Amino acid sequence: MITLASDFDTPYPAAMKGVILRRTETRLVDVAHDFPRQDVRTAAFWLREVLPYFPPATHLVVVDPGVGTDRDALVVRAGDHVLVGPDNGVLVPAARRLAPDGIDAYGIDESRLESVEPTGETRRPGRADTAAGNETDDDGPASNTFHGRDVFAPAAAAVHEADPGALESVPFLEPAAEYVDRRLPEATVDDDRARGEVLVVDGFGNVITNVPGEFLAGRRRLVANGEAVPIGETFGSVPEGDRLATVGSHGYVELDVNHGRGDEAFGLEVGDRVDLEAERS
Amino acid sequence: MITLASDFDTPYPAAMKGVILRRTETRLVDVAHDFPRQDVRTAAFWLREVLPYFPPATHLVVVDPGVGTDRDALVVRAGDHVLVGPDNGVLVPAARRLAPDGIDAYGIDESRLESVEPTGETRRPGRADTAAGNETDDDGPASNTFHGRDVFAPAAAAVHEADPGALESVPFLEPAAEYVDRRLPEATVDDDRARGEVLVVDGFGNVITNVPGEFLAGRRRLVANGEAVPIGETFGSVPEGDRLATVGSHGYVELDVNHGRGDEAFGLEVGDRVDLEAERS
Amino acid sequence: MITLASDFDTPYPAAMKGVILRRTETRLVDVAHDFPRQDVRTAAFWLREVLPYFPPATHLVVVDPGVGTDRDALVVRAGDHVLVGPDNGVLVPAARRLAPDGIDAYGIDESRLESVEPTGETRRPGRADTAAGNETDDDGPASNTFHGRDVFAPAAAAVHEADPGALESVPFLEPAAEYVDRRLPEATVDDDRARGEVLVVDGFGNVITNVPGEFLAGRRRLVANGEAVPIGETFGSVPEGDRLATVGSHGYVELDVNHGRGDEAFGLEVGDRVDLEAERS
Repeated sequence: MITLASDFDTPYPAAMKGVILRRTETRLVDVAHDFPRQDVRTAAFWLREVLPYFPPATHLVVVDPGVGTDRDALVVRAGDHVLVGPDNGVLVPAARRLAPDGIDAYGIDESRLESVEPTGETRRPGRADTAAGNETDDDGPASNTFHGRDVFAPAAAAVHEADPGALESVPFLEPAAEYVDRRLPEATVDDDRARGEVLVVDGFGNVITNVPGEFLAGRRRLVANGEAVPIGETFGSVPEGDRLATVGSHGYVELDVNHGRGDEAFGLEVGDRVDLEAERS
Repeated sequence: MITLASDFDTPYPAAMKGVILRRTETRLVDVAHDFPRQDVRTAAFWLREVLPYFPPATHLVVVDPGVGTDRDALVVRAGDHVLVGPDNGVLVPAARRLAPDGIDAYGIDESRLESVEPTGETRRPGRADTAAGNETDDDGPASNTFHGRDVFAPAAAAVHEADPGALESVPFLEPAAEYVDRRLPEATVDDDRARGEVLVVDGFGNVITNVPGEFLAGRRRLVANGEAVPIGETFGSVPEGDRLATVGSHGYVELDVNHGRGDEAFGLEVGDRVDLEAERS
Repeated sequence: MITLASDFDTPYPAAMKGVILRRTETRLVDVAHDFPRQDVRTAAFWLREVLPYFPPATHLVVVDPGVGTDRDALVVRAGDHVLVGPDNGVLVPAARRLAPDGIDAYGIDESRLESVEPTGETRRPGRADTAAGNETDDDGPASNTFHGRDVFAPAAAAVHEADPGALESVPFLEPAAEYVDRRLPEATVDDDRARGEVLVVDGFGNVITNVPGEFLAGRRRLVANGEAVPIGETFGSVPEGDRLATVGSHGYVELDVNHGRGDEAFGLEVGDRVDLEAERS
């Protein structure tokens, strides 16, 4: 199985699927293609929360603000899972969650990656043709702006056909001496106080913090950024439209509104600081 | 085959897919994940119109404003089809359409449903861990806010592997003594007059009423909420931008605009009353 | 494999999938269902750019402003690929790209196309039932407004089971004497000057012109609609927020902004004229 995740509008994901299906017969599953544009951290968070629910798979991820720069292309083995994407850290939190005992990273040598050419006549130029007076590097089949189609999709298809335990034998892979080792920010929890931040706001408006849900265990009352907020086991524990703190489905403290948007009620957005004070029951 | 329908933003549907694919090898087909948030009636309408076009399948539906309350989780057998979702009526109109001769409803006993745990380390707490001074019920693997992933998806996967004719033998199912028996509102048709309402407005702006299309058969002229509207067999029967009444693809009278939005032209939204007067040809 | 592309909101694409899966067991891949509503030209562009990356397949395309008029329904053979959709030109640029040596077009005789009826009771009327005093044509199973479900999906399923080399033997197909032969506009390139137009603006805001990328080869400076714009091999060749001209992944000159929206910066939209002057290195 190959999963796909990106910040691409249609029909760009379909081009990646076509490329993969020319190379390998496998199930394709979309994880998301509406990650916030070029927001590596948010994508890294969601992938870490979602990919562990999948059976062993190859995960193609393209959230890539550095496309066309010299950022590397990466393949990461995490237990029975393999992740493919840009070396900007987007793969790492999910990989570490999937394989707490350690991950292995490989760089993609684009010059050794077999190109997938479209059918029929096209005028898609290789890199060498797009020179504009500056230096060019004719090292692969890639366009300069759509590595999802031209690098990551063919790499994912080829890796998918390889044994995850023998990625060393894939011709275009070489062990990565280093890679961007992104970590999501962690909260500081000190007895009755927690200092964290907003990791992400989901589509329902739920404010997902990085404070572990255990912080609420056995608590009776909470003060969030100076305001008292009831703690509820479920949305339904407060009247519709009321605010509450709860432990969300990801295991973190969330600041929510029952049948409403927590982000608006609490005036919080991604990255904002969250100070919590709790009182024991 | 398992179809999926919800009001979930990505990547939540992908988490459900991962859970299913850990349990069973089957085709997954998305029906919709952009149903209006927590709008059970609209989802029930669309499911009733779309699911009958599918071959026999398990249909997983999660539009669930009551998540975390004590609403039950339901499995409904409707002929060769099986529907899985919350007991709020969202499954019922589709099930009745699929099996006019009768449906069978089963409650899901969450305590007997086998959990699907994510790979790797997580801090996702069970219900017992999220206590906040109030009573807790440690009766299953569920988060309090994402039953799609933790209850309905594993239930759908397990039910999919069972014989639809022998749901009694599925350990976590028990015949439901009662369930929310939602009915979509029906119009009153009386010779040349029909009184109904707007069932739904689709993405094109077409106003789908609950007046059966037969009402327009052999009619020459229509008055809708006091205004004369031409009756057309197709959008193209009136000039672009003009209003018309037609029989839509669902078999109901629609109030539309050729290459425009009927909802804006007629000033109608979901639930609004529609009075129609027709004149025989 | 059958790919699907449309301008339909959910759950309309799912109805097409259900119909197909009742007829044939095959992989389904979504190309896009958010093409700009009834914008045949934009859909034709994207299909031409994306479908050539797929292995041989049946491509179902429904962008159909003429639904319910007397426009024909078409099947086009393009090498190993078969395209199915309305005869408004939407299929043709992709087909010509897939099969530069020539394509074959067939009309669909709806009266010979086997209907796919939904399960259970429905009140969906045939055409004859929707008469409104005007002439009716009882020539097929179709609703008047959803040919995607009632004509194109069953046609695609049936065609998919046929040999692409023997479409003549499909009962409901007949060679098309003529069809809408849409061509996308071509730029005029004259040494150091190019006159073209904006073909499409993608979701990133990149302005994709119809000037072939070769025009920038060996160029040093560009003037676009009177304004000097740096030529860059990649987005990263200019500072964030700066404008540049580059060769996009489709092989055309694009007017972009690094980490921004080119359409807003250049004040350009689809169909606008683009005059380029370039200086040799």
